[in-house]
Amino acid sequence: MIPEVRLKPRADKRARAGHPWIFSNEIDGSVKDLPAGGAVDVMAPNGAFIARGYANPHSLIAVRLLTRNRREDIDHPAFYQRRIEEALRYRQQVLPGRESYRMVHAEGDALPGLVVDRLRDVLAVQITTLGMEERKPQLEQAFKALGFEAAVLRNDARVRELEGMEMGRGAWFGDIPESVDVDEYGVTFRVGLLEGQKTGHFFDQTDNRHWLGSLCGGKTVLDVYSNTGGFALHALKHGAEKAVMVEKSEAVCELAHENAKLNGVADRLTILCDEGKRTLESLVGGGHRFDVVNLDPPAFAKTKKVVKSAVRGYREINSLGLSLVAPGGLFGTSSCSFHVDEEAYLGAVQEAAHHVGKRLRLARRGGQGSDHPVVPGIPETRYLKFFGFGVTPAA
Amino acid sequence: MIPEVRLKPRADKRARAGHPWIFSNEIDGSVKDLPAGGAVDVMAPNGAFIARGYANPHSLIAVRLLTRNRREDIDHPAFYQRRIEEALRYRQQVLPGRESYRMVHAEGDALPGLVVDRLRDVLAVQITTLGMEERKPQLEQAFKALGFEAAVLRNDARVRELEGMEMGRGAWFGDIPESVDVDEYGVTFRVGLLEGQKTGHFFDQTDNRHWLGSLCGGKTVLDVYSNTGGFALHALKHGAEKAVMVEKSEAVCELAHENAKLNGVADRLTILCDEGKRTLESLVGGGHRFDVVNLDPPAFAKTKKVVKSAVRGYREINSLGLSLVAPGGLFGTSSCSFHVDEEAYLGAVQEAAHHVGKRLRLARRGGQGSDHPVVPGIPETRYLKFFGFGVTPAA
Repeated sequence: MIPEVRLKPRADKRARAGHPWIFSNEIDGSVKDLPAGGAVDVMAPNGAFIARGYANPHSLIAVRLLTRNRREDIDHPAFYQRRIEEALRYRQQVLPGRESYRMVHAEGDALPGLVVDRLRDVLAVQITTLGMEERKPQLEQAFKALGFEAAVLRNDARVRELEGMEMGRGAWFGDIPESVDVDEYGVTFRVGLLEGQKTGHFFDQTDNRHWLGSLCGGKTVLDVYSNTGGFALHALKHGAEKAVMVEKSEAVCELAHENAKLNGVADRLTILCDEGKRTLESLVGGGHRFDVVNLDPPAFAKTKKVVKSAVRGYREINSLGLSLVAPGGLFGTSSCSFHVDEEAYLGAVQEAAHHVGKRLRLARRGGQGSDHPVVPGIPETRYLKFFGFGVTPAA
Repeated sequence: MIPEVRLKPRADKRARAGHPWIFSNEIDGSVKDLPAGGAVDVMAPNGAFIARGYANPHSLIAVRLLTRNRREDIDHPAFYQRRIEEALRYRQQVLPGRESYRMVHAEGDALPGLVVDRLRDVLAVQITTLGMEERKPQLEQAFKALGFEAAVLRNDARVRELEGMEMGRGAWFGDIPESVDVDEYGVTFRVGLLEGQKTGHFFDQTDNRHWLGSLCGGKTVLDVYSNTGGFALHALKHGAEKAVMVEKSEAVCELAHENAKLNGVADRLTILCDEGKRTLESLVGGGHRFDVVNLDPPAFAKTKKVVKSAVRGYREINSLGLSLVAPGGLFGTSSCSFHVDEEAYLGAVQEAAHHVGKRLRLARRGGQGSDHPVVPGIPETRYLKFFGFGVTPAA
């Protein structure tokens, strides 16, 4: 018998509209007795069934909903197999022929707490909720039933601590190779399965990298906050004359150098292993100009409280970046802060342009790729902003 | 000597931030004496120069600004030549190799009142302000200096009437062919220079058509409000099994049929010459399903006043369209109403999905192509919304 929780009066609107989160203060009665990680049924104030999910009495999000169908058994592997199969089918539709991508994007694929990157035949899995952690045996069965024989766990997201779980990385099941070569529109990235950041490779920028990179033939390119050099490598592979990338982590710079060699473009790539803003300032000070400049900074606003100072920070680095663009050149800029929305980020870039006397033409308003699906009505599924501009002196 | 107008106290903020419009009620003193179509200098309340533009005492927008540089002569052909050259260079950067595109996008290219579509060597020009109308001789000289030998005028935008000008179409200069074959990623569109709607071909959806069309191999496709069949033709060219297009104008349906023959796909295309919503209803009534459905309705909200009923209308056609998508299929939907913003349109689609029991994954959030550049800070330069979704039964 699955325990039931009832929502407080008027606390059922979001859940009824399809959102999968129930906050602890929306539940009528104590949340302390909810089964940690266990299945619960969420009922409307009038007692009607709304949806079934798993609980965590120690999290601000007390229940994450998995299904609106009372006949579905969320403790059975078949449930996860169906959901993952649907996620796979969607990617085969919108990214035909691609072998590596984000295969499960948590709420975006109606599987809260589960993030899976497919690196050809190997899965890099991140579990962020207690409910999903408890269902690892079912998930393993589901993955195997779908033909996946090997997976690593990359459980180093801080949110795990909020759910009362430990962080850590390691093999999960099957034979794990040291690395997998991921193909992105003809550019190869060697992805270490137990190295690097997050799930190992940032798939979310793939289409933006391809778009900007494909416009760089014969040009000089600056790629700041470059991680493993994604934008620079796409540009060089498309015939850029030379590229400079800036990345502060030495380990990541080494990976970038390896990737450059792998793609036969190392002779045209300069790697500056340094902090982004400082390097921008010193390039501006040196009077440099590039045909194409790209900024892909880390999230400046990890919480709502720091949005103002984050926007200020974005304005500053965009002013510096825009100053470095040659007249008639291109400028790419991204924010992955969920709390800084698209209009706020665009506003910051516009103010930066005004400040340094540039006129912008917005050529591409991108975001995370199709393999990180956004669900309308679940704003939390959308986080990445990318803008590509043509830059000329102010009119 | 160029006449000066002074702005009322606190009315200079938008202009200082880079926006090119001065409304008549922002000017200190009477606007009646402004030179119709002539150059004026706009000064801040304190008398400082802000920008130079052209005036229309009979329009709500009394002055449209062209330059912040007092040394520029906006009555000289060289000024227009420089601006158009910059617009061309931008397109060569972001759309390398393309031969036909929107070449000048009014405010998006700092040339308010001027819209130019380049159909290979021929220009289709739309002039929407008195100030630009007065400068036709300078524009002609500028186009010719840039190597363009032929142009037609397609002056049938209603906004011309607000500026006190007549509507009409005709040759402008040079030898005008009857039609030009425009290539869009391998799909050919024969565009009549004096037929069809607006400037003849809707370039703004090119990239969205290509994206959705390229995912249609082996599929059944429904393309509603299809104009000359753009989405359907892309789909068929990419190997769609069959496509049905719905368009109410007989003349446009004939063009679509010609285009289908030109691309060798007429045998797989069914053209229904009928109103969109009625046809959607009858297809739903008939129990039909398609792997891919696309809706590209005309602007339901041409003014701010009718936004509410427009959103209702959008919700209705999207409910119908979504009902016709086979499980696991794809759905494309657009709005070109400037007054219905992206969030409002996405909300309408989401409600439609909820209503018909579908779950959406947003795969592509597109807009007008790069050749219709949006300028941050001039919201009026952005109008087209396109969403591409994966559609499954509600979870």
